[in-house]
Amino acid sequence: MEKIFQYIDQHKKEYLDELFTFLRQKSISTRDEGVSECAELLAEIMKKSGIESKIYATDRHPVVYGESINDENAPTILVYGHYDVQPPEPFELWESDPFQPEIRDGKIFGRGTSDNKSQLFAHIKGFEAYLRTQGKVPINMKYIFEGEEEIGSPNLEVFADGHKDLLKSDAAIFSDSHVHESGKPMTILGLKGMTYVEITLYGANRDVHSMKAPTVPNPVWRMIELLSTLKGEDGLVKIDGFYDDVRPLLDLEIEAVKKIPLDKEAIMKDLGITKLVQNRTGDHYYYNLIFEPTCNIAGIFGGFTGEGSKTIIPNKVTVKIDMRLVPDQDPDDIYEKFKKHLIKHGYGDAEVKHHGMITPSRTPIDNPYVAVANEAITDAWGEEPLVFPGIGGAGPNYVFTRNLGIPCIVVPFASADQNNHAPNENMSVNGFMNGIKTAASIIDKVSKMRR
Amino acid sequence: MEKIFQYIDQHKKEYLDELFTFLRQKSISTRDEGVSECAELLAEIMKKSGIESKIYATDRHPVVYGESINDENAPTILVYGHYDVQPPEPFELWESDPFQPEIRDGKIFGRGTSDNKSQLFAHIKGFEAYLRTQGKVPINMKYIFEGEEEIGSPNLEVFADGHKDLLKSDAAIFSDSHVHESGKPMTILGLKGMTYVEITLYGANRDVHSMKAPTVPNPVWRMIELLSTLKGEDGLVKIDGFYDDVRPLLDLEIEAVKKIPLDKEAIMKDLGITKLVQNRTGDHYYYNLIFEPTCNIAGIFGGFTGEGSKTIIPNKVTVKIDMRLVPDQDPDDIYEKFKKHLIKHGYGDAEVKHHGMITPSRTPIDNPYVAVANEAITDAWGEEPLVFPGIGGAGPNYVFTRNLGIPCIVVPFASADQNNHAPNENMSVNGFMNGIKTAASIIDKVSKMRR
Repeated sequence: MEKIFQYIDQHKKEYLDELFTFLRQKSISTRDEGVSECAELLAEIMKKSGIESKIYATDRHPVVYGESINDENAPTILVYGHYDVQPPEPFELWESDPFQPEIRDGKIFGRGTSDNKSQLFAHIKGFEAYLRTQGKVPINMKYIFEGEEEIGSPNLEVFADGHKDLLKSDAAIFSDSHVHESGKPMTILGLKGMTYVEITLYGANRDVHSMKAPTVPNPVWRMIELLSTLKGEDGLVKIDGFYDDVRPLLDLEIEAVKKIPLDKEAIMKDLGITKLVQNRTGDHYYYNLIFEPTCNIAGIFGGFTGEGSKTIIPNKVTVKIDMRLVPDQDPDDIYEKFKKHLIKHGYGDAEVKHHGMITPSRTPIDNPYVAVANEAITDAWGEEPLVFPGIGGAGPNYVFTRNLGIPCIVVPFASADQNNHAPNENMSVNGFMNGIKTAASIIDKVSKMRR
Repeated sequence: MEKIFQYIDQHKKEYLDELFTFLRQKSISTRDEGVSECAELLAEIMKKSGIESKIYATDRHPVVYGESINDENAPTILVYGHYDVQPPEPFELWESDPFQPEIRDGKIFGRGTSDNKSQLFAHIKGFEAYLRTQGKVPINMKYIFEGEEEIGSPNLEVFADGHKDLLKSDAAIFSDSHVHESGKPMTILGLKGMTYVEITLYGANRDVHSMKAPTVPNPVWRMIELLSTLKGEDGLVKIDGFYDDVRPLLDLEIEAVKKIPLDKEAIMKDLGITKLVQNRTGDHYYYNLIFEPTCNIAGIFGGFTGEGSKTIIPNKVTVKIDMRLVPDQDPDDIYEKFKKHLIKHGYGDAEVKHHGMITPSRTPIDNPYVAVANEAITDAWGEEPLVFPGIGGAGPNYVFTRNLGIPCIVVPFASADQNNHAPNENMSVNGFMNGIKTAASIIDKVSKMRR
């Protein structure tokens, strides 16, 4: 790999120049600004790098697909990324034009630098560098770059389900998110799922003067009782069967979490809290963050919410709850169990809205492609990555693990201070270069896997 | 009394003319419109009727005091009323000018008609009729008419405490509120008190992404636990000592409540509910309304309260609670017990605001002045009043029962459909005339009390 890495370092200026062209092309998906132009530019960039590319229309923004099929007996790696970006506003907080990228202090500033153009671009250039130096790529590569990630990926699953043969692969590599706060590289092997519900309980058909409180039912008190049935004093979720499908942890997963550097005091100080939540297995920050499913009250409101006092019996109260799920909890199944819970406890009359379902995903840490990714990162970055068996956030990785049935490994190149979705979004030049090297190294490591 | 009642009927037109002059004089206390002019007019009206009157300045609007001292060995009755009115807006919903009273369908329409000018005016004319027909009033009468009721009576208690000798009496008669929905006259012997608290619990120093829910404490869950400690499944308030000072009921009080006509189905249909609250002694509507102290959640809010979904751990949650108290619960004592409860259950860190204290009052139903008032009403209205030992509402009657140490009996003359505080406020002409007769009859009955 030494030779390839040298080649990559020698072409730094070219890579940055090309990246800047890509960054200058707006692709604001939420307001359809420049997205199809960006898709065409991206397909062109891929072609020049030796990847056959094709644009697939969806109901909104196109998918740019690419491939390099070289040996039908060799493994196939599917790289996922997104070429759409967040709107740049508020402009006045940017220190330079969001669509005129520039480098300051070793960082490329501009909209889409870290999220996600530079990261997917690194994969293209990693492929190109491998091809140019080695003459041929011995494995099969596929690329799926969507234009709708910033609006919730409404067509990603649809596209995957409709193109299972096209996307057939042995593993997916996601390069989004960022490396660890400590600067260490990392891999992320899972995301949580979600069942989001909104419950409303009604009392009288209008707010009633609270002088009637000894006679007219108050739905807020009833909601307190309802919510009290959902969680025990031990912090456990009391919905029957809630934990039934939680996948047993591998020893390797537990060990990996123990290796993640943790400064509990700093976390608590930053948040202004004096203790962390105690869960089934204690208050270990990363263990809970990664492995514990949750039942979180995101909002509650009913009755008088202004300043001062008003004496009413509220006619209704609403609570919003997000339940973050871990493999192999199924969001639809949890929703059904939740509804059964309400009926069991006498709240079958509650109005329940349902704001979204995401399936959790976790690629087992002992999957051979995890080792390959870690080795590639170690080569490119010069240090071993931290391995996160999962994170607290939810996302569409299940489209790969569940719908396509392949392992999915997140390999971020951006820094923790990337300002995603915010002014002065940036990508470290070093992370970008390491990303190209990682991408090339992944090809190398996969080609050497024992089969 | 027959002769006096005839005299009153004969002077109906004069009474209405004089009342209209009084009603035309604006006295909107909340914006200081015409209040002092109205006080002077009222003092003048009282003088013409044979009551010595005097205007006392307060920190804002004056008290109009009047008296007729006739026999230092005779009982003294103190009549309370208020000459200030609510603002008339919205004008467009009035069918006639709020300050140009007119009679339609047997009702006087105008701002202040029922609340409270006609009612206090009836007392003045009742006195006058007694005086004109009998030559002299054999008991002592005192009148306190404040100009700040519609802004919460900020100086009533101050005035009472500062003028204890001036106001020294044997009983107070309040003519505010309205007769029963059935049209039957009534007396009200008590009002509830109140302790109003606002509790805020804090979590992190900002809203936190709910991916952190397995690690960062959620103050809403903690609030659910806190609120769960306040009330039991039996509906009882679980604050230690909350019921300690609840005054035992008299058999007569319980019997009086049983006589109040009740259409439970109609009440539930109107409110769109299928059951009433179950309290310590069952779900008897009036029993609970009158005798049960409450702990009512008037409002709760925390976190995301908009449409749709957002995934956060709220940084704080606030709940507003009004506790309506019955004699002899003391609002300050209940507040102290509430704070002790928080500490006992581990919520000593909660932020507690305190939005007002009202002392409950209840004149015992066997007080001799209650019988006198009931007899006077029976004479004037031709039917016995319903006797409410109390109502669900809170108010300043404690200034009389507690600060002045005298029984306080509410004797309303207005109809239940009076539109208090609303457009088209009105007073039944019949109720007004019965009020004058009741006032005269009270003088008669008191003068005949055995001493």
